[in-house]
Amino acid sequence: MNTQEIILVSRPTGKPTATNFSFENIELPMLKVGEVMVEGLYYSVDPYMRGRMNDAKSYVPPFQIGKPLEGSVVAKITASKHPDFKIDDLVTGRLPWRVQSVSDGKGLQKIDPGFAHPSYYLGILGMTGLTAYFGLVDICKPKAGETVVVSGAAGAVGVVVGQIAKIKGCKVIGIAGTDEKAALLKNEFGFDETINYKTTPDMAKAIAGCCSNGVDIYFDNVGGPISDAVISNINFHARIALCGQISLYNTTETPMGPRLQPMLLTRSVLMQGFIIGNYQLRFPEGLQQLTQWLKEGKLKFTETIIHGFDQLPAALLGLFEGENTGKMVVKA
Amino acid sequence: MNTQEIILVSRPTGKPTATNFSFENIELPMLKVGEVMVEGLYYSVDPYMRGRMNDAKSYVPPFQIGKPLEGSVVAKITASKHPDFKIDDLVTGRLPWRVQSVSDGKGLQKIDPGFAHPSYYLGILGMTGLTAYFGLVDICKPKAGETVVVSGAAGAVGVVVGQIAKIKGCKVIGIAGTDEKAALLKNEFGFDETINYKTTPDMAKAIAGCCSNGVDIYFDNVGGPISDAVISNINFHARIALCGQISLYNTTETPMGPRLQPMLLTRSVLMQGFIIGNYQLRFPEGLQQLTQWLKEGKLKFTETIIHGFDQLPAALLGLFEGENTGKMVVKA
Repeated sequence: MNTQEIILVSRPTGKPTATNFSFENIELPMLKVGEVMVEGLYYSVDPYMRGRMNDAKSYVPPFQIGKPLEGSVVAKITASKHPDFKIDDLVTGRLPWRVQSVSDGKGLQKIDPGFAHPSYYLGILGMTGLTAYFGLVDICKPKAGETVVVSGAAGAVGVVVGQIAKIKGCKVIGIAGTDEKAALLKNEFGFDETINYKTTPDMAKAIAGCCSNGVDIYFDNVGGPISDAVISNINFHARIALCGQISLYNTTETPMGPRLQPMLLTRSVLMQGFIIGNYQLRFPEGLQQLTQWLKEGKLKFTETIIHGFDQLPAALLGLFEGENTGKMVVKA
Repeated sequence: MNTQEIILVSRPTGKPTATNFSFENIELPMLKVGEVMVEGLYYSVDPYMRGRMNDAKSYVPPFQIGKPLEGSVVAKITASKHPDFKIDDLVTGRLPWRVQSVSDGKGLQKIDPGFAHPSYYLGILGMTGLTAYFGLVDICKPKAGETVVVSGAAGAVGVVVGQIAKIKGCKVIGIAGTDEKAALLKNEFGFDETINYKTTPDMAKAIAGCCSNGVDIYFDNVGGPISDAVISNINFHARIALCGQISLYNTTETPMGPRLQPMLLTRSVLMQGFIIGNYQLRFPEGLQQLTQWLKEGKLKFTETIIHGFDQLPAALLGLFEGENTGKMVVKA
């Protein structure tokens, strides 16, 4: 049986382009006992994938030249010789960027499309929601009345972080890159204040203006000068969760900036980098809480859905242009 | 009664000089009921005092122009109208830089010169020891077999941190600024490896050479490029305690350096700034442990003692030239 896959043909220097990817037709092997055939329905594109395009040792191995990219996918079982899966089951798991794939079922989890839209299992009920939950709750430990700043606030993780901070009784300030995103955060997701960093000349002053009591918690998705501006307003005993640094992912030289340690020292600030894999043993706790908040209507979610398997590379590149609001997903 | 004090006459720009200080003769008031007269025996000089010379809001208020500097002092009671103190008692506390002072006794604690040399109550049995203890044990949580790097290792705090890390079963690498200090750390204080940063052209490579398993814990007393070099070797799930940034205290412009957040993120590193005041409620625990280790001979201490009250400003300035090994103390 033939199918199509998207492979990495070259590693980007700086910003990736369409030329780093190639569409290939491949022949799938016959299904063996213990295997399933899956067809991708929704493909997750995430900022961390940029790191995997480099040939650098990191917490996930780099994508290999000549091999398909991979990521979280919601897929349908189209053939099964595996006792745990039958045709038309919906599953989520880490799969290659292929229209159809053969899998031994390891890491595939059945999902319930009756409870939430299938794509939600890539977002609010997947790594995105868990990242927001553990990063905020476990690292930042929000207390009612505290002031929380979220950068990349209209991104997949940011929009969930802000809402959880509101559930915890905090004042929440979101930083985003368009007036439309800022308005959505305020009107739809309950953020108290928003700042459009692209139209704000003095970010440090703007943040000070929104945060009359200083910044107790900073959930950082972007890094760079936006973070400098937030941290210049940081409070004694503040907590900073480093979740993403998307503004720096396409840099070709070591990015330079003000040294933050003197301020972190004198203000007794905690800065903690994390990846969601650190919390694997606690995923059930996180999913249970996120599910409950969704059911109670306390948590809302938003997605940017791009149509067509062939749009996967463009969707990934679009993340670095801020083309998404909420979770970026490609529907095959 | 007349005495002498050292006042701040001007705030330094960059490195402080002798001209920022002035010696004044003052008349002390008559002792009232509830007061004691104390004579300073040992005066502590500490890097954090540089911050108090600036007119900047911080965790301790700035020194005031025209007023005496102050710090931790070991003093002798020379007259008493206070029920808790009698003549010849030795006390430690926060006192002005005066030869003789009048105090209401608040914050003065009697010390036992029979157990340890009086000056030790400014060092290993004072803020210095407590800073090393809580910074390493509470923030860095050393585990046997881990690799610990200490910058400013021959300084008052560093020399204690390294020894506690050895007690905890770690491999300890100390960074210092002379071969003599490096040799002392290895021969006298049990550090496994040392690096003289002044004679090492490629610090990152030198640290990699000493730390074949990477750096699990970095106890930072200095900041700047030395810290960059250590952090470039940092391990997944490493802990960094920000205790001092002495290399940056005399800078007049915001110091710039490589942005560390991307690395802290992908390696899930914790960076925590702290000041010893955060641990006030746990001082008894820390002092008990330090005392026990001293008694057992597991912990040694070293001091640079400068003689003469009039040498206080020079001793403080000497900290920024690395003139001390271990705790810098002025004996009146």
